[in-house]
Amino acid sequence: MIGVDWGTSSFRAFRIAEDGAVLERRQAPRGILSVADGAFAAVVHELTGDWLRDGEGRILLSGMIGSRQGWRESKALPCPAGIDDLAGALTPVPFDAARAFIVPGLSAQDGQGTPEFMRGEETQIAGVLPSIGANGLVCLPGSHSKWVRVARGRIADFTTHMTGEAFAALADHTILGRMMQGSREDEDAFDRGVSRSADPGGLLHHLFGVRTLGLAGRLADPAARSYLSGLLIGHEVRTAATGVPADRPVHLVGEAALCRLYVRALAACGHAAVVETGDAAVLGLARIGGLVTWS
Amino acid sequence: MIGVDWGTSSFRAFRIAEDGAVLERRQAPRGILSVADGAFAAVVHELTGDWLRDGEGRILLSGMIGSRQGWRESKALPCPAGIDDLAGALTPVPFDAARAFIVPGLSAQDGQGTPEFMRGEETQIAGVLPSIGANGLVCLPGSHSKWVRVARGRIADFTTHMTGEAFAALADHTILGRMMQGSREDEDAFDRGVSRSADPGGLLHHLFGVRTLGLAGRLADPAARSYLSGLLIGHEVRTAATGVPADRPVHLVGEAALCRLYVRALAACGHAAVVETGDAAVLGLARIGGLVTWS
Repeated sequence: MIGVDWGTSSFRAFRIAEDGAVLERRQAPRGILSVADGAFAAVVHELTGDWLRDGEGRILLSGMIGSRQGWRESKALPCPAGIDDLAGALTPVPFDAARAFIVPGLSAQDGQGTPEFMRGEETQIAGVLPSIGANGLVCLPGSHSKWVRVARGRIADFTTHMTGEAFAALADHTILGRMMQGSREDEDAFDRGVSRSADPGGLLHHLFGVRTLGLAGRLADPAARSYLSGLLIGHEVRTAATGVPADRPVHLVGEAALCRLYVRALAACGHAAVVETGDAAVLGLARIGGLVTWS
Repeated sequence: MIGVDWGTSSFRAFRIAEDGAVLERRQAPRGILSVADGAFAAVVHELTGDWLRDGEGRILLSGMIGSRQGWRESKALPCPAGIDDLAGALTPVPFDAARAFIVPGLSAQDGQGTPEFMRGEETQIAGVLPSIGANGLVCLPGSHSKWVRVARGRIADFTTHMTGEAFAALADHTILGRMMQGSREDEDAFDRGVSRSADPGGLLHHLFGVRTLGLAGRLADPAARSYLSGLLIGHEVRTAATGVPADRPVHLVGEAALCRLYVRALAACGHAAVVETGDAAVLGLARIGGLVTWS
């Protein structure tokens, strides 16, 4: 089987054996935003043509390729949903050289009825479910961080925090940006930001403090970016991990450096964390693909 | 006396009589950022030269003209401070055609020791103090909204919320911006945003809801900007007005349309509000100038 993790900015393909072993992998900067005129089939031929000619007849895709801007808009299954539900609700896409399907996304609602959507993360969670067990909390940090509750081995519900994207907008497009020249990773400043997020006054007040601490000589410019990062991640973690027992670790899935920051922030908030290693997307594609009736 | 309200992007000058009456006013897009090589004296000559030739020998300036990027960096008086303290701590600036002074800014600390600064707002507050009385809460909404506690007729302390600038960064530089095309003022959407700010989950989670409500067809693109505005102002008001008795109105000082939004948000949070009309900056310059020993 060929598994494809196709996001907004990158394309990753894997040749996966029957037993789930990854035989070969490749990637290219060919995210869906780079594909003109819906020529997705041509990109698959270009980047995996040798595998297809070699006899691969099954392709499973996940990620933003299933969005409105992708190849075909895939379903958004309502939570709770298990891996079997994902495998049973694939969206076929027209392709001349193999059977090709897109994994569905998921939908949910927060406690106040505001809708939630994910597309791509469901496959990553499917990949790490075996190490989470029947019940647990998973965090996938990033531009739009997802906090996912697993119950009875299924994805029960989830919430999203726009932390990474808010960070970039605030660091690059507000007066705080003047302090962000020549920044470097600064763990102490990050910890100070996380600590500050526990104070009263709210995030909008805390943001201005980044500037006033600088003006007062109490936060050096090179440390400001890490402080802001800690402030935002601290706000996210404090609300998202509310009610999680301290002895139940949060499972982190994502880029290693970012996961390390979340481990620090969670620890400061009294929560244990486990960083899931391994490539969650390809693990998930393999697991879902193993449940599909291809014939 | 000539009063000058000189900010980052605009220059406003007033010819003020002994009794505080404004005899003449003019303005120009000559904020301090537009003045090259520190040529502030030349701008004053250019824009008020006729008044100077007419015999005016006193100039009182307030605003960012007293910042590090201005004519001279003025003091930042620690709170609490009264109008007499402001008038007694002016910073002289070298000027050949009149005695010229800059009103000091103010400094404070929030409950956790994070520094606060204002420069220009102290003069606006001086202008509206007579209508506030001995004790009250003043809000000056804007890019960096100030919430100022007045006690015994003096400025007791204040906090800043980076609401306006965060709004611009989020609306213009995140995925939410895609929804903001062709936006118009929408009071219902603003109220929905204010209401949403009371929900649990935190601002970073609520921000993502702007997008998901749109994807779900529950928030139309033209209404998204007002919803986001209500969400942010709601977060600000709920934290800044905490502990204010419902029967004590918040005094709003600022641009009329923005004040109207804050009145709506405060009402939704159970607070009365009074919009201070009149030009607070010139009123303040006149009041402070009246206390200065010019000779």
